[in-house]
Amino acid sequence: MIAIDWGTSSFRAYRLDAAGTVREQRSADAGLLTCNGAFEAVLAQQLAGWGDTPIVMAGMIGSRNGWHEVPYVACPAGLAQIAAGMREVSAAMLPGQRVWIAPGLVLRPADAPPEVMRGEETQILGLIDQLHADGPQWLCLPGTHSKWVQVEAGRIGSLRTAMTGELYALLRRHSLLAALMPESRDADVDDVEAFERGVAASAGAGGLTHHLFGVRTQGLFGALNPAQAPSYLSGLLIGHELRGLLPPDPPAVHLIGGTALLRRYERALEQLGIASQSHGEALSARGLFRLALARGLAA
Amino acid sequence: MIAIDWGTSSFRAYRLDAAGTVREQRSADAGLLTCNGAFEAVLAQQLAGWGDTPIVMAGMIGSRNGWHEVPYVACPAGLAQIAAGMREVSAAMLPGQRVWIAPGLVLRPADAPPEVMRGEETQILGLIDQLHADGPQWLCLPGTHSKWVQVEAGRIGSLRTAMTGELYALLRRHSLLAALMPESRDADVDDVEAFERGVAASAGAGGLTHHLFGVRTQGLFGALNPAQAPSYLSGLLIGHELRGLLPPDPPAVHLIGGTALLRRYERALEQLGIASQSHGEALSARGLFRLALARGLAA
Repeated sequence: MIAIDWGTSSFRAYRLDAAGTVREQRSADAGLLTCNGAFEAVLAQQLAGWGDTPIVMAGMIGSRNGWHEVPYVACPAGLAQIAAGMREVSAAMLPGQRVWIAPGLVLRPADAPPEVMRGEETQILGLIDQLHADGPQWLCLPGTHSKWVQVEAGRIGSLRTAMTGELYALLRRHSLLAALMPESRDADVDDVEAFERGVAASAGAGGLTHHLFGVRTQGLFGALNPAQAPSYLSGLLIGHELRGLLPPDPPAVHLIGGTALLRRYERALEQLGIASQSHGEALSARGLFRLALARGLAA
Repeated sequence: MIAIDWGTSSFRAYRLDAAGTVREQRSADAGLLTCNGAFEAVLAQQLAGWGDTPIVMAGMIGSRNGWHEVPYVACPAGLAQIAAGMREVSAAMLPGQRVWIAPGLVLRPADAPPEVMRGEETQILGLIDQLHADGPQWLCLPGTHSKWVQVEAGRIGSLRTAMTGELYALLRRHSLLAALMPESRDADVDDVEAFERGVAASAGAGGLTHHLFGVRTQGLFGALNPAQAPSYLSGLLIGHELRGLLPPDPPAVHLIGGTALLRRYERALEQLGIASQSHGEALSARGLFRLALARGLAA
């Protein structure tokens, strides 16, 4: 089969054998935004030479702005509920291949705005059956919109999002704070000491809108040089995310994501005295394989 | 004399009589950023026909990027300390007129980054001698960078800044949330109900980076329409500013600023059960007049 994680800005495809092992992998800057609605043609092009079936996809491709809107499945939900929400789409440009899209998840708390995710749930499904601890487990998937998820007995129970990555990008690029940093983000280095100072500052009084101004004044008074400022800002924002969304006394946090970002979250959690365990993003292939099996699409 | 509030993006001049009463007023989009360093020429042009002396200025014109850097005066500081920090600049293009720049204030807390302001201190000086209550009083000057100030016995004791206005502008214009709002900010209306919901949401668990995502999901699920979303976002950010920087049980908060913004802060404070009293921005003319007197520049 072929497993695909297709988001707003990226496209990742995995070719799996019958045992679910990844045999080949392709990725492209073919996110939804670049497709102009021609999803079927883009898919056929990206998969050229891969004739396997089924093709199972997750991510924003199943959203209102994607190929076909697949309704959200309500939390708590595990493998069976998510598999039951999968939808098949017709794809004449991929003859002989069946194409399925997995649903995202929605949580509707009584006392807070709704929560949603699309794509991360397949990464979680790729990990969830390997978590053998009793009781609830906490997962964090850092990114543009970081997801915090509680799982228990194989099901995703709760879900909360923080716009940490997006806020960082906005402030790094467009704010008055950016004037105190190197012009290009490409040159940013990981300054561990400045990052840890940012995490520590997030514990102070006054809240995030106040702490952000400290990036500026420390820059003005030479307490933070341009090379350090991005790391400090990152630590400040991640610190606020953790303090806002960490449950009280979690046994540990499972992190899923790219290496560089996970290292920052590991560090920040360690600074708060919380253990973490990191897992790579390729979990989505395993999650999609499990979904295909549960739906009876793969042997 | 002539009193001038000259900031990064605006220029406001007041012509005062010997009693300190404003007789004429001019304002222009002649902020520092538009001057290309030609401050003296811009000043001469803006004051054409006004021959009064002295000219006393406050704001970013006294910063490193202004006409002449006037060193910050340390808090706590009152009229006498601020007047002592004023500096005269030579201005050959304004013959017969003496030109002075007032200093800004700095606070260096032991356990937090430094705090600064330039310009707001003259508005505060315009109000401070009229506050007849005993004990500490709280002032808030909302804006791009909101200032929270504690005054006691005629002196500015403490100072904290929140980047609320800048954060709002960034999110309103560049973030994913902007996609759920009308394209032009000019069309934004003041939706009181949505604003109050935003203020209320700021009290929820999870922190600001989390609450921001609620703007998106409520938009997706029809709980917030595009016309309401900007007001909700404003309420959320102002709510976070207040919860972060309000002292415990303040007797009341004195607000200084423009009418539209003050109305929002009045509403948010009322929602939190806190009384407020609003004052207009023209206080800076009175503050600069008091400074000129204290420095012995005006009769």
